[in-house]
Amino acid sequence: MTIEIQPSINLKTAIESRRAARSFKPDLIPPAILIEILRLGVRSPSGYNLQPWRFIVLQDAASKEKLKACAFDQRQVVEAPVVLICCGDRRTTQTENIEAVIELGKAAGGMNDNLASYLRQAIPQLFENRPCFESLETWTNRHTMLAVAHLMIAAQSFGVDSCPMEGFAAVKVKEAFQIPEEVDVCCLLPLGYAAEPFKQYGGRFDVTQVYYSENYGKPLQVEI
Amino acid sequence: MTIEIQPSINLKTAIESRRAARSFKPDLIPPAILIEILRLGVRSPSGYNLQPWRFIVLQDAASKEKLKACAFDQRQVVEAPVVLICCGDRRTTQTENIEAVIELGKAAGGMNDNLASYLRQAIPQLFENRPCFESLETWTNRHTMLAVAHLMIAAQSFGVDSCPMEGFAAVKVKEAFQIPEEVDVCCLLPLGYAAEPFKQYGGRFDVTQVYYSENYGKPLQVEI
Repeated sequence: MTIEIQPSINLKTAIESRRAARSFKPDLIPPAILIEILRLGVRSPSGYNLQPWRFIVLQDAASKEKLKACAFDQRQVVEAPVVLICCGDRRTTQTENIEAVIELGKAAGGMNDNLASYLRQAIPQLFENRPCFESLETWTNRHTMLAVAHLMIAAQSFGVDSCPMEGFAAVKVKEAFQIPEEVDVCCLLPLGYAAEPFKQYGGRFDVTQVYYSENYGKPLQVEI
Repeated sequence: MTIEIQPSINLKTAIESRRAARSFKPDLIPPAILIEILRLGVRSPSGYNLQPWRFIVLQDAASKEKLKACAFDQRQVVEAPVVLICCGDRRTTQTENIEAVIELGKAAGGMNDNLASYLRQAIPQLFENRPCFESLETWTNRHTMLAVAHLMIAAQSFGVDSCPMEGFAAVKVKEAFQIPEEVDVCCLLPLGYAAEPFKQYGGRFDVTQVYYSENYGKPLQVEI
């Protein structure tokens, strides 16, 4: 029997009601919900479908204590029932992963020999020429954060709170969790059920302050 | 009169049905829907609420032609009714923006003098010490891509297709759209209504291939 799990909260409400949870209740996330969140998170897109994201899922108390020591002692890291260490693996730019992506495409029906040949040529060129990024660290973070946003929004739509954190020392995290040199730690993401005190909303800049029209710096005119 | 606009597509369906659109119909996005997508996009979180994302909204045919010449001549850039040039501004790390964020928090009710003092000290320290990133380019991309994912998912939930693109030459885009030196171009995001041919699904690695348990490289055991 397959049970179809549907989100209980609509997208707009999920986006608008989400706050970074600074404290979590001890309540566990039901395994079926957790897996569904993890699955939806990696439906995120990536350039050439390379999927450089990798996540370490912490559920053991000892692991979370170890992470807390690498995260300026912030308590949400040990309180949350699940904590993701969100990483991007630079090695996914290499031949082995390119071939894995081609195989995946064949299985999904979205790959043919012409496209495969194109990918074998175009992907190494992208990383040699880097027209759209300076460092591989930028490239891994760019993609991993797309997936992190998918995870956060999917979680919220199932009533699961999260707390995206950049308060960590990457060198320590990498050492503590046997993360290879070529892998970047992009953020931490505790998941669970928020406890009080809830963080207050800090506000957002107005649409006309962050969206420009046709050229950089020219405020967008909003007329509805 | 305020009209409340609600998404027509649920979150799970929006995430699962989204494909990068390689071709767009000429149909325009209704202005009220477009503004709602833009507004929800920047409800994305950011470290210390600094909101480094900035977007140039292209709607003029001439602007889109100009962008196409910087984007390896890809046709979706001129076909889509709206194209976002998604940027991250490194200058948002500076005092002027920190003070703007503090003012924003005061207006939203989520700021007090202690927190303001803390931010004035902690934010410059973060960018001096950089415990969790190597380059400012990484930091701007990290945040901007969170917002890009919010934009994509919000768009899809209103039935608006998108095409996240890293096929562009950043140097050319910056020159063509008067983007300052300190601003990074993170991706392009055409928005509109997909035309055939639709791109086929390339597949995704299994949850057990990209999620690890407790340490890097140890596959997650999925038991439901």
